[in-house]
Amino acid sequence: MSAYKEKKLFTPGPLCVSEEVKRAMLVDLGSRDKQFMQCVEEVRCGLLKVAEVSPEDYTCVPLQGSGTYCIEAVIQTISPAGKGKVLVLANGAYGRRMVSICERAGVSVRKVEGPEHLPIPLNRVEDTLQSEGGWSLVCVVHCETSTGVINPVQEVTKLVQRYCPDSAVLVDAMSSFGAVPVDMSGVDYLVSSANKCLEGVPGFSFAICRLTHLLSCRGQCRVLSLDLAEQHVSLQTTGQFRFTPPTHSIIAFNTALALFWKEGGVQGRAARYKKNKEIIVSGMEKLGYRRLVPPEHDGHIITAFLYPQHRAFNFTTFYEKLSERGQVIYPGKVTEALCFRVGNIGHLFPDDMHALLRDVESVMREMGLPVPLQ
Amino acid sequence: MSAYKEKKLFTPGPLCVSEEVKRAMLVDLGSRDKQFMQCVEEVRCGLLKVAEVSPEDYTCVPLQGSGTYCIEAVIQTISPAGKGKVLVLANGAYGRRMVSICERAGVSVRKVEGPEHLPIPLNRVEDTLQSEGGWSLVCVVHCETSTGVINPVQEVTKLVQRYCPDSAVLVDAMSSFGAVPVDMSGVDYLVSSANKCLEGVPGFSFAICRLTHLLSCRGQCRVLSLDLAEQHVSLQTTGQFRFTPPTHSIIAFNTALALFWKEGGVQGRAARYKKNKEIIVSGMEKLGYRRLVPPEHDGHIITAFLYPQHRAFNFTTFYEKLSERGQVIYPGKVTEALCFRVGNIGHLFPDDMHALLRDVESVMREMGLPVPLQ
Repeated sequence: MSAYKEKKLFTPGPLCVSEEVKRAMLVDLGSRDKQFMQCVEEVRCGLLKVAEVSPEDYTCVPLQGSGTYCIEAVIQTISPAGKGKVLVLANGAYGRRMVSICERAGVSVRKVEGPEHLPIPLNRVEDTLQSEGGWSLVCVVHCETSTGVINPVQEVTKLVQRYCPDSAVLVDAMSSFGAVPVDMSGVDYLVSSANKCLEGVPGFSFAICRLTHLLSCRGQCRVLSLDLAEQHVSLQTTGQFRFTPPTHSIIAFNTALALFWKEGGVQGRAARYKKNKEIIVSGMEKLGYRRLVPPEHDGHIITAFLYPQHRAFNFTTFYEKLSERGQVIYPGKVTEALCFRVGNIGHLFPDDMHALLRDVESVMREMGLPVPLQ
Repeated sequence: MSAYKEKKLFTPGPLCVSEEVKRAMLVDLGSRDKQFMQCVEEVRCGLLKVAEVSPEDYTCVPLQGSGTYCIEAVIQTISPAGKGKVLVLANGAYGRRMVSICERAGVSVRKVEGPEHLPIPLNRVEDTLQSEGGWSLVCVVHCETSTGVINPVQEVTKLVQRYCPDSAVLVDAMSSFGAVPVDMSGVDYLVSSANKCLEGVPGFSFAICRLTHLLSCRGQCRVLSLDLAEQHVSLQTTGQFRFTPPTHSIIAFNTALALFWKEGGVQGRAARYKKNKEIIVSGMEKLGYRRLVPPEHDGHIITAFLYPQHRAFNFTTFYEKLSERGQVIYPGKVTEALCFRVGNIGHLFPDDMHALLRDVESVMREMGLPVPLQ
């Protein structure tokens, strides 16, 4: 028995995973053992299949560390020192993080911004691409996890192809990959992480990379650990990671992928998440909460709810009382409004959503909030 | 039941860990959950205790990713662009890796080399420090995992203090920390990893950093993910990692630390590893194998054995036949001789060592090698 009390995680990850995925970690494999190398190969091939791309055009490069590591790896690998010029479409914290990565690396960067509760404004993207050329990379976040907004990736890639066809496109699909389809035709790099919609445990992230582009970038990364091109070459030629991989996390992920296909792949998973989200949204709205993001732009991953305008509401108390009941929600991460977030991804089902709603109501009463809110 | 066959790992990590450590991973905790933050705090304090340093002088900064990430994080965090000057003492692959990290980062670097089978030559270190000043960082590997050689860390720190007291000292104690004592008095940064002598599962590494030095380096790291100073500040002020941590791996590590203390800390663990190593070395020598490293310089972590000079010996066959018997040894990693390695760290006991020796003998007979080798 664990010394810790397991709770339901209504978060964007680390999230709840199935018992089967966790139990897959009860084995120690050597990182050069054939069984493990076979597992890595299955994971890499499986992820290309999830992305619906061919191994002739793309390679899947897993990387030790969190999702941010892999975003940074793409930027550091493909932006030669003093030469790259990056355009980041930023309507939330994760877009802004890509800007920080470029600034730290000394890579020239410009951002197109938009309000946090709306998709990135395509007209501004078009204006920027039209008025200025020479971008080496355009970066866009698919689902801005800070709000749940879904950005129009396909429209962005079309604009890039039209105005700046030499630029690569990086999609941060951290919290959407596996549950929101992406048309990869205009995408050169897509990054996601083990502990999101594919429902593995944290420990590594991965990039689906257009092979010709990645291979053209060999030798220019200034960070040994984050060199995606060398990571690809090592995996491709020796079947091994360059540095110690999180073996247990990767083994667990292979089980997670099997469960993903069993559920019906992207469609199946999306269907469950949509149902989860519908229950949360309609339940919370009945309790008087309002969403930050207009319904037509809100995805089916996570929902940002505005703080109630009632003096009895205090987020810390609200969070802790829910946590005591075994329900973990997530703080907000937007600058333009006071919000909290409820995720609906991971090994969560409609019954879990109904249980959360009952606990939200009971906590509201305990806090002296009117039910529903006025 | 796992789909994989668990084998005994005579490797420098990932290695065998106890069932208790693996079972600690059967829980999903939120990365902002108080229970998890408490666990992180316990791990950080526990590691300072292993290093026998005070929290007033040092901080423990865990970092997502493998050990190399944390070595690179120290170098990238404390070497300002275009200003740092690093001296690396390199008598093996891990020393040379630190040189590569500097070269990639554009940090001025010089190395003092020595033969791979011997400790780093102190006279050359002294000559270099005496003849040239202005080093910002001196790097030394404690146990060169590529050979098992133990380098004289304390003597190196004394030389640095004498000739270049302004320089920081980084000790790569990846495969020694927790089983070979280190005098931290002249050490500013010590790096190790979860899946070495402390017998956790891979997923993160950590640096024990001298607080005043680390804090003097804020704002200069060119890699967001690897900024150890910001990682420290975040953990210290919010109790949280900046980016998604490998929750399961950290929870498992807390259990691993409890088992470490139960075994008697560094002394207890060293005693078991020494016993393991004695059995392996005397058994292999009886079978006719010769060590690469002279006994007085060989630690108690891993042993490099020279390939037998017999035409029936083929390492791949030897490795695979042992692997079929559930025993995983490790290839060599030295340039000056053909070797393979046998690790004796991890959840391994004298009986496991004897079992390996029996299997080595049976594989030798199967391969048509004389027993003992002539």
